[in-house]
Amino acid sequence: MDALQNGRNLAAVTGPTKRPFQEEAFLAAKRWGLINQAAARAEIFDTKAKDSASRFGNNIESYIGTISVPVGLVGPLRVLGANCKRDYRVPLATTEAALVASYNRGARLLTAAGGCNARVVAEGVNRSPMFAFDSVLEAEEFSNFIAAHCALLGDAVSQVTSHGRLVDVRCVIEGNHVYVDLQFTTADASGQNMVTFAADAICNRILEHSPVDPRYWFLEGNFSGDKKSTAKSMAHVRGKRVVVDVSIPRELIEQQLHTTPERMVENWYAGAIGCVLSGTTGIHGHFANGLAALYLACGQDVACVAESATGVTRLEANGDGLYASVTLPNIMVGTVGGGTALPSAKACLDILGLAGPGNSVALAEVCGAIVLAGELSIIGAFCSGDFATAHRALSRGEAMKRSRNHD
Amino acid sequence: MDALQNGRNLAAVTGPTKRPFQEEAFLAAKRWGLINQAAARAEIFDTKAKDSASRFGNNIESYIGTISVPVGLVGPLRVLGANCKRDYRVPLATTEAALVASYNRGARLLTAAGGCNARVVAEGVNRSPMFAFDSVLEAEEFSNFIAAHCALLGDAVSQVTSHGRLVDVRCVIEGNHVYVDLQFTTADASGQNMVTFAADAICNRILEHSPVDPRYWFLEGNFSGDKKSTAKSMAHVRGKRVVVDVSIPRELIEQQLHTTPERMVENWYAGAIGCVLSGTTGIHGHFANGLAALYLACGQDVACVAESATGVTRLEANGDGLYASVTLPNIMVGTVGGGTALPSAKACLDILGLAGPGNSVALAEVCGAIVLAGELSIIGAFCSGDFATAHRALSRGEAMKRSRNHD
Amino acid sequence: MDALQNGRNLAAVTGPTKRPFQEEAFLAAKRWGLINQAAARAEIFDTKAKDSASRFGNNIESYIGTISVPVGLVGPLRVLGANCKRDYRVPLATTEAALVASYNRGARLLTAAGGCNARVVAEGVNRSPMFAFDSVLEAEEFSNFIAAHCALLGDAVSQVTSHGRLVDVRCVIEGNHVYVDLQFTTADASGQNMVTFAADAICNRILEHSPVDPRYWFLEGNFSGDKKSTAKSMAHVRGKRVVVDVSIPRELIEQQLHTTPERMVENWYAGAIGCVLSGTTGIHGHFANGLAALYLACGQDVACVAESATGVTRLEANGDGLYASVTLPNIMVGTVGGGTALPSAKACLDILGLAGPGNSVALAEVCGAIVLAGELSIIGAFCSGDFATAHRALSRGEAMKRSRNHD
Amino acid sequence: MDALQNGRNLAAVTGPTKRPFQEEAFLAAKRWGLINQAAARAEIFDTKAKDSASRFGNNIESYIGTISVPVGLVGPLRVLGANCKRDYRVPLATTEAALVASYNRGARLLTAAGGCNARVVAEGVNRSPMFAFDSVLEAEEFSNFIAAHCALLGDAVSQVTSHGRLVDVRCVIEGNHVYVDLQFTTADASGQNMVTFAADAICNRILEHSPVDPRYWFLEGNFSGDKKSTAKSMAHVRGKRVVVDVSIPRELIEQQLHTTPERMVENWYAGAIGCVLSGTTGIHGHFANGLAALYLACGQDVACVAESATGVTRLEANGDGLYASVTLPNIMVGTVGGGTALPSAKACLDILGLAGPGNSVALAEVCGAIVLAGELSIIGAFCSGDFATAHRALSRGEAMKRSRNHD
Repeated sequence: MDALQNGRNLAAVTGPTKRPFQEEAFLAAKRWGLINQAAARAEIFDTKAKDSASRFGNNIESYIGTISVPVGLVGPLRVLGANCKRDYRVPLATTEAALVASYNRGARLLTAAGGCNARVVAEGVNRSPMFAFDSVLEAEEFSNFIAAHCALLGDAVSQVTSHGRLVDVRCVIEGNHVYVDLQFTTADASGQNMVTFAADAICNRILEHSPVDPRYWFLEGNFSGDKKSTAKSMAHVRGKRVVVDVSIPRELIEQQLHTTPERMVENWYAGAIGCVLSGTTGIHGHFANGLAALYLACGQDVACVAESATGVTRLEANGDGLYASVTLPNIMVGTVGGGTALPSAKACLDILGLAGPGNSVALAEVCGAIVLAGELSIIGAFCSGDFATAHRALSRGEAMKRSRNHD
Repeated sequence: MDALQNGRNLAAVTGPTKRPFQEEAFLAAKRWGLINQAAARAEIFDTKAKDSASRFGNNIESYIGTISVPVGLVGPLRVLGANCKRDYRVPLATTEAALVASYNRGARLLTAAGGCNARVVAEGVNRSPMFAFDSVLEAEEFSNFIAAHCALLGDAVSQVTSHGRLVDVRCVIEGNHVYVDLQFTTADASGQNMVTFAADAICNRILEHSPVDPRYWFLEGNFSGDKKSTAKSMAHVRGKRVVVDVSIPRELIEQQLHTTPERMVENWYAGAIGCVLSGTTGIHGHFANGLAALYLACGQDVACVAESATGVTRLEANGDGLYASVTLPNIMVGTVGGGTALPSAKACLDILGLAGPGNSVALAEVCGAIVLAGELSIIGAFCSGDFATAHRALSRGEAMKRSRNHD
Repeated sequence: MDALQNGRNLAAVTGPTKRPFQEEAFLAAKRWGLINQAAARAEIFDTKAKDSASRFGNNIESYIGTISVPVGLVGPLRVLGANCKRDYRVPLATTEAALVASYNRGARLLTAAGGCNARVVAEGVNRSPMFAFDSVLEAEEFSNFIAAHCALLGDAVSQVTSHGRLVDVRCVIEGNHVYVDLQFTTADASGQNMVTFAADAICNRILEHSPVDPRYWFLEGNFSGDKKSTAKSMAHVRGKRVVVDVSIPRELIEQQLHTTPERMVENWYAGAIGCVLSGTTGIHGHFANGLAALYLACGQDVACVAESATGVTRLEANGDGLYASVTLPNIMVGTVGGGTALPSAKACLDILGLAGPGNSVALAEVCGAIVLAGELSIIGAFCSGDFATAHRALSRGEAMKRSRNHD
Repeated sequence: MDALQNGRNLAAVTGPTKRPFQEEAFLAAKRWGLINQAAARAEIFDTKAKDSASRFGNNIESYIGTISVPVGLVGPLRVLGANCKRDYRVPLATTEAALVASYNRGARLLTAAGGCNARVVAEGVNRSPMFAFDSVLEAEEFSNFIAAHCALLGDAVSQVTSHGRLVDVRCVIEGNHVYVDLQFTTADASGQNMVTFAADAICNRILEHSPVDPRYWFLEGNFSGDKKSTAKSMAHVRGKRVVVDVSIPRELIEQQLHTTPERMVENWYAGAIGCVLSGTTGIHGHFANGLAALYLACGQDVACVAESATGVTRLEANGDGLYASVTLPNIMVGTVGGGTALPSAKACLDILGLAGPGNSVALAEVCGAIVLAGELSIIGAFCSGDFATAHRALSRGEAMKRSRNHD
């Protein structure tokens, strides 16, 4: 059985050499021998999954096949981004009824309003190694050393990556601990691995030159916010901080959402305070729905929804209509690396026209725009009283009989 | 073009009647006509996706095909659950290198230790309608009315669902707002739709009988924690509150993780304080990785990772070895409904032996056990200095040359 | 020197028997001998302080005299409370220039608007002992035992206090820990000591009857929120949850605050989002200022400002004017016990007409009303551009030259 | 009556010209005429209060007298600070029984251990004006302007204060809002007023030169953390970030706290997780108690307890004994300005030997040391089972009969 597990004799997390197709498929077949589920095998390890076995070698271990997730198409979604104004068709992968329909409604509203502004207002991915000392006295000395030798650290980075660049270093002292918050830019990759390798190189450089030896240290001290919703990033950035906003004329709200700007603002107040009372990180409705579906379609790391699905939705009535914005401080996306080169991810990025280098900012803008679309649509549904009705109808595949129970 | 969008003339989020296969596939083909991406179409809308079009009718709108995500097999993972002790083979869907290998390592450690204890210690899914009044005086009157008429509300539920049951009602007053926090059990479904319909019925019942009319109200006031990481649920539950723990002999730690219990506890301290300093909801390493991969494989709502990937990891050295636990207050899983009946989700649940009614508690226990496996493995990797090395090797498909840069 | 310290040979925190006046004053004098600061002694240990030495015996140890804090008088402040409608003169003790003037301005605005509604919408003080076990299995068993024996616990309470009453018990399981969240009502005392003694009695009762012995336990596990700002209490209560609200005609806003309802709402938006971005517990401006000054004047525990100064301020424009509310979930006040019987505290409570039993609800209402007054005044100052100007003038004791730099 | 209120015809918060003694005392007497409480008057407006009336003119408005708060003396407390090693006698003002005794016990423990290390590891006081624009496009333009013109802003500061210095500027964009987070050093003043005036000057400079006009702006957008417990400052600083730590031999723990390092670590675990489960900002026991008492004695702004009483307590067992640290990111203290020149505040600062310029760092170190003393003492009391017993004895002025109910 050992041979079926990638990385036998694992002293740690280990991996295979890249095996030829026959070997991967052969091993997958042997793994199915452990399970004894013929129908499951036929579904998961179908011909395509068998044929593709070797293509997934850099993306998974202990491969047994593939799962299928349905994709819906949303759009056109007009985004007035930093580099171009575009109408996007957006693929969303989900199994939750009503999700695609709801985001579609929001997308069309934004497009009808002339499109939404979108900007990446800050960028950076962090790793935060932790160094432990005997007392705060040594911690302070170490921290002062780091502050005085940032150039040394940047130099270490350039030797392990040509794309990653160290852009900020900050020490946070707690007791005899020092958290060294390293911030990098990572070009068009989402960059988690890149910053791991770069931080590792930095730590080794630090250990060579530090005037004081740590009692122990770790490559990550959970201060970076990796895979976690944090208050820290609300005021900073992890990945890309995306802001998208729009002003929508009253008539469009009435025609397309069947409610009014004022009522939507009432809903925003209700939801904002609800978030505050429940100790939510940020104020929003359901960022996670659109982000998870877009990340999944486009080969992004879906686990990053844990950190990305936080931020602020804001609605204000402005005489003639509605101002609406979303601020997403933690958009972790890339158009190269990770899962982006896998067949269906590449296909979805192609639908967006955003595969490959040079496109990660635009992809982040689309993430923000989709999220704004979703916020407007769900608030509209709560305001017009259609939320329950729509979910009932769509999850049962029935035509929806609208019955408004509000206003 | 309108006909291509589900829910044309949408006054709200609307949906199609369930269409026969030909029509769904035909519409999907027409949608591809809007995109003009032949290669993408070949990948996403392949024969299987075309043939399956009608099967996804209750799970997605504006269907254009399916994406494929590779699945790895982890295990055996021994779980000492409330109802049975089992060795599970766990399918994880992801495109992130090293993830499956890492969880596998943790799973084998738990199994070698004799298995981990797993318990669902609380259950309940909430909806929190918000009612707005003129002043706190009316809010108080309304709140008193609700407190005195809980039976009335439970009765409303029984008329719209046979599986959902109202188990708690609590009013939270803020200014002239009342948030009515309704908690339901939802049998073996994750239950988001069920509680939406039930809450809608309750609100209508309230409006019929309330001695004071709200100025306005909304079906959800963002107090329920739906799709959001909240402090509230750390002390309560959303879905299932799962606790998994284990005591691991020192020798196993040394043999399988190449470190010591004491060093792992040092890492835990480092990470716990890092979480506190960054304002993380809870204390943990990377709950999101395993949860997202398991939810995705098994047809769960991946967007729920936003709420599920919070909780507490705790490590303590105990003379002979290591005590380790994870507490996950927000596990949102079901073995019926949602995406669980879709072909590949059903297949993955079958691999676990957990498809269909009666299995949601066990599925939640597996979620907790996988998460504990992942926490132990990543902490082990940070302690032995293998974290960066392993990611470098696995993401490049190379054999890893272990080089410990710590201790 | 030992004899100068209360509780010599302290095996733990110990205290003196109540000493007669001469002895207390004598010991204080000896303590001054250690310091050698004649001017300081003359100020702190003046005749009144010397004469009062024995009066403070139950409130302080190692007494060396008293400090003086100036008190300002605010009002009339009209409060439409649950039991009576009253115009209060409110003593505020502070050394911060502009504070009394600002609260006074807000108080007069509320009174001019006909008074503010005030309600205590929930009550309860918690203690949360923690019990640790071998594993979650025992933790679950213990938790089930507690749930089944609440009456047993309530009975233990009645034997140690005639005023405190156990009103809720809830177990929260984390790993092999059980936090037993005990909630009490404490009549007109703020009640921290009362709930400590009651919880101690409960724990002893639990230990007698529990079917499973804890490995260890502690009387408090920091889950109660004592002296800490917590997200938990935003959705619940610690002490008294006070809501105060008011609707203010546009003309009053314009005349007294020299701004408009709309501009105040803009300021509220600015500040609300600022709180969210900075990870504040709640949304508010400066609850702490008024609360600290009122607590200090009236013999309340000023350290409780740490927990009390959280909550929600909400402003909405409503056609004709402004709706404003404050919600304070953690007001910890009493009109008996603690420092309330000390001479100047008693005097300040007498100014309010709220000394002694039966008055704690009204005192909590005054706290809320003062806080609302302060929120309106500071927002008004930010809106009219007077904030910096007023602080400059008042802290220099000069007449302020108003110069508006906004609008 | 108008004349009795400071700042009549208040268009905003206004203040009096500095009045001579007779006038202040006369007005105070007239204010008492409104109250009709002879006994209260005799207590609050005694001869000393009457004589001192004019001395409080810059610190309070609508003066009616003074309250008295008893002071206890703690120490000697040995602090190994950045600039000097000193044994302090620390005055604490409180009305809560057991507080001084408990801090005294902790202080003697620290001193017996050779003293505690204390360092101010970061400094800075923030103001965060908010500027609102039409859309994120203008917000981005404005933000870029600020980033490019920091020197301009620093120059504005030098014209209004010779002590304050602008040390950091950072823009945080949310929707069409820009929060300009200005950080200042304020010499030996706590500095809230100083940074208000400086920020006001900066805003005016910005408005003169900005290429884009804000729709509106406010001097403070609640992002600075003023008077609020925030997650933001856990990772940064507000005022002074103070770290104090110590290593205590096992025998001292056993002799003075009657428990063991291991048991204290168990208590730390219990309390740390309790804080996490309740959504506390930071991890600690009762920072507020010692801080409030020290702030009050020394003329600091007691309302700042709301922001200061957050941070991290950490305990680790280290073979030979116990490592303990406290990290307080928000210590807001000064030795000049505010209430520090008032008679009793000056006296208490003199007891510490820290009145006047050059002493604010040392005062912050004492704050941290007192807080560490309090954390050790309370944890010791919970561990030895003396917590309830000690409070019962001291609040009743009785000799305490120790009865340990643990170990």
